[in-house]
Amino acid sequence: MLERRKTIPIGEAVQKIMEYQLHGVTEHVSINESFSRFLSEDLIATSDVPHFDRAPYDGFAVRSIDTTEASQSNPVEFEVVDHIGAGMVSKKVVGQNQAVRIMTGAMMPEGTDAVVMFEVAQDYEKDGKPFMSIKRSFKKGDNVSFIGEDAKEGEILVKKGTVINPGIQAMLATFGYNDVPVAKKPLVGLFATGTELLEVYEELVPGKIRNSNSHMIAAQIERAGGNVHYFGKLPDEFDTCFEAVKNALKEVDMLITTGGVSVGDFDYLPAIYKKLGAEVFFNKVAMRPGSVTTVAQYNRKILFGLSGNPSACYVGFELFARPIIRRMLFSKKPHLRREKAILEVDFLKANPFTRFVRSSVFIKDGRLKVAPSGLDKSNIIMSLSGANSLTILPGGTRGFTAGSEVEVLLLEDQTGSEWPW
Amino acid sequence: MLERRKTIPIGEAVQKIMEYQLHGVTEHVSINESFSRFLSEDLIATSDVPHFDRAPYDGFAVRSIDTTEASQSNPVEFEVVDHIGAGMVSKKVVGQNQAVRIMTGAMMPEGTDAVVMFEVAQDYEKDGKPFMSIKRSFKKGDNVSFIGEDAKEGEILVKKGTVINPGIQAMLATFGYNDVPVAKKPLVGLFATGTELLEVYEELVPGKIRNSNSHMIAAQIERAGGNVHYFGKLPDEFDTCFEAVKNALKEVDMLITTGGVSVGDFDYLPAIYKKLGAEVFFNKVAMRPGSVTTVAQYNRKILFGLSGNPSACYVGFELFARPIIRRMLFSKKPHLRREKAILEVDFLKANPFTRFVRSSVFIKDGRLKVAPSGLDKSNIIMSLSGANSLTILPGGTRGFTAGSEVEVLLLEDQTGSEWPW
Repeated sequence: MLERRKTIPIGEAVQKIMEYQLHGVTEHVSINESFSRFLSEDLIATSDVPHFDRAPYDGFAVRSIDTTEASQSNPVEFEVVDHIGAGMVSKKVVGQNQAVRIMTGAMMPEGTDAVVMFEVAQDYEKDGKPFMSIKRSFKKGDNVSFIGEDAKEGEILVKKGTVINPGIQAMLATFGYNDVPVAKKPLVGLFATGTELLEVYEELVPGKIRNSNSHMIAAQIERAGGNVHYFGKLPDEFDTCFEAVKNALKEVDMLITTGGVSVGDFDYLPAIYKKLGAEVFFNKVAMRPGSVTTVAQYNRKILFGLSGNPSACYVGFELFARPIIRRMLFSKKPHLRREKAILEVDFLKANPFTRFVRSSVFIKDGRLKVAPSGLDKSNIIMSLSGANSLTILPGGTRGFTAGSEVEVLLLEDQTGSEWPW
Repeated sequence: MLERRKTIPIGEAVQKIMEYQLHGVTEHVSINESFSRFLSEDLIATSDVPHFDRAPYDGFAVRSIDTTEASQSNPVEFEVVDHIGAGMVSKKVVGQNQAVRIMTGAMMPEGTDAVVMFEVAQDYEKDGKPFMSIKRSFKKGDNVSFIGEDAKEGEILVKKGTVINPGIQAMLATFGYNDVPVAKKPLVGLFATGTELLEVYEELVPGKIRNSNSHMIAAQIERAGGNVHYFGKLPDEFDTCFEAVKNALKEVDMLITTGGVSVGDFDYLPAIYKKLGAEVFFNKVAMRPGSVTTVAQYNRKILFGLSGNPSACYVGFELFARPIIRRMLFSKKPHLRREKAILEVDFLKANPFTRFVRSSVFIKDGRLKVAPSGLDKSNIIMSLSGANSLTILPGGTRGFTAGSEVEVLLLEDQTGSEWPW
């Protein structure tokens, strides 16, 4: 009864999936809906910034040449010939010993090349006309923001595959991206298997539990940046099951099933893959939990057969499905970000396989620390709620003591890594 | 012309806002829409988990008492009287030297109290009946998950104010939360001021720039967990302006304006607050950028008058508006999370005021490091795109050298802090 499976290392498993090239698709969304989406094209400066010489402070725009002789003992007087706020353009051409009162952001009037800030000017009226005087000289360009100082037209400012944050949103607005090219969210189909499963709204009965894996994975798909199509529970009957999987594949970009991939007596997924003629990349990985994860492709759609065990299911998704979703979002760093952290507790029990421990990383005095987020039995979903990381404990003959440096994979992170294995 | 304002320290400014109690409101959403929302009630275990004694592995359920004599030299034989998968309940009462073939997750049959894993059992047929034998003894409870082992009914598992992550989503499903109590997203109104502003879809003309602040702040509101109601640009005429602000306040939970709070000649906001009869909490803060930020309340709605300068606007939102939004989401840690980091570059220029430098934190060999995310002129939006943090440089007579420890406020973080000042 125990089917023979070939166990492969994690890195090799991930590589087999990543070699199967799936590409992202662009769609355009309004700038009002682009926050937190992934750019599918480079963000290019469509103009210089600023696109005119501007005053960065409130003050008086002058010709610097007229200020040369100004000093404490020799104040120089200017006639204030105009008064402009941001967005206004003075029609005056400023002549000798003339000035324009100017507000932050306004365009420098013709002829002027420096701004005298209010604080260093004395303003007054003479014969009903406004004047001001200064007691120091200014150089050409003093207190002026010049055309193209912040960005040059044609410059690539943000690379495609970057998540749009508030700063990028501001740049999109600045450069007139009213419709923003973003990666279409891949549609991920989801099936649960298991006669023991009840829907969330059903009452508990002996022997049955509510389906939590589908809701967990749905949230993981959303966190990764995908959309979810939940097809419900796979029926128990093989042929109906087979048809359901085959039809679902037509509607989605990839398909995830939870449960039914082990070697238990009611695990149908391997047989479904076989009848489908799917190319199985692997069906056993040298890791705990999640060793029975199976990944295959059929008709250029990837099928992720995740374990029905909640922890194994969680880890399998993050290691194998997330990078495919992120790549379809044009991300150059589709994998979980890996960092070094100091273990806060002992893990003395050795294990021949690489373990992924659901854990909570935190920063203490500027150093990354990590502790398991709960009891780490593989059937305990409680430990998942506090998990923001997976601690990698390499397989071997020894355990790990508190204070050791370990590697962690960060779950709540948009940076990612190119290749963490 | 220079209006007199009283400058107050940042901590005092934030405190004045936080003292003004605004409370969150609960709404119920489907579990399919609850990911990344904030729980508005504690998540309580509505049943024990597991709610029946279950097999955590595939194997044979037996009465441990029948295994006592089993050893390498004395195999003990069991008749396999039933065969159940997860979700099935055996109708058999297991008697002496009987066993039930059982799959992971299935309920322990009546009479049994231990599970023999397949690996340590030998199964065979005798006269067409299934049997198995074992060569070691088992104790009561071996390989059994007992009722309530993971969670006890009534236990508080997750505190209100916590963001729903995939693990919590799984718990909600487990405990039958089909409708999840979450904090209603506060509705934040948004006005831009400035004659210089064009809409994103408009062509550039001399002296004018596209409105980027509103799109930036809209994204910051979303990141904080609020909903945005963008009212557009405030008209230039005072009375129309006043009416627009007054009417907008009726429709939203709080109102943000960008620009118009300085002491420039076209800055109307202070006069609007005055005519409204709003209670001004402060209108000058000892910080750079953002010193002219004004915050007031009118009719139990908070008005945030943020600077029109992009950086000041950005910082003002994160320090002053974010915590109010997060508190309305029931968060116990509504402020930006503060951590220590090592400065990667020099900041030699001293400044009498506390500065908030847009920066990028990263981890190198397990240590938090920080570098400015771009040129740090206050009018440069480019530096905002790479910012995931604000470095706090306390005011004083000296600058800061690379390698110094500084404090940073993390922007892309859901943890937050209770009080970072």
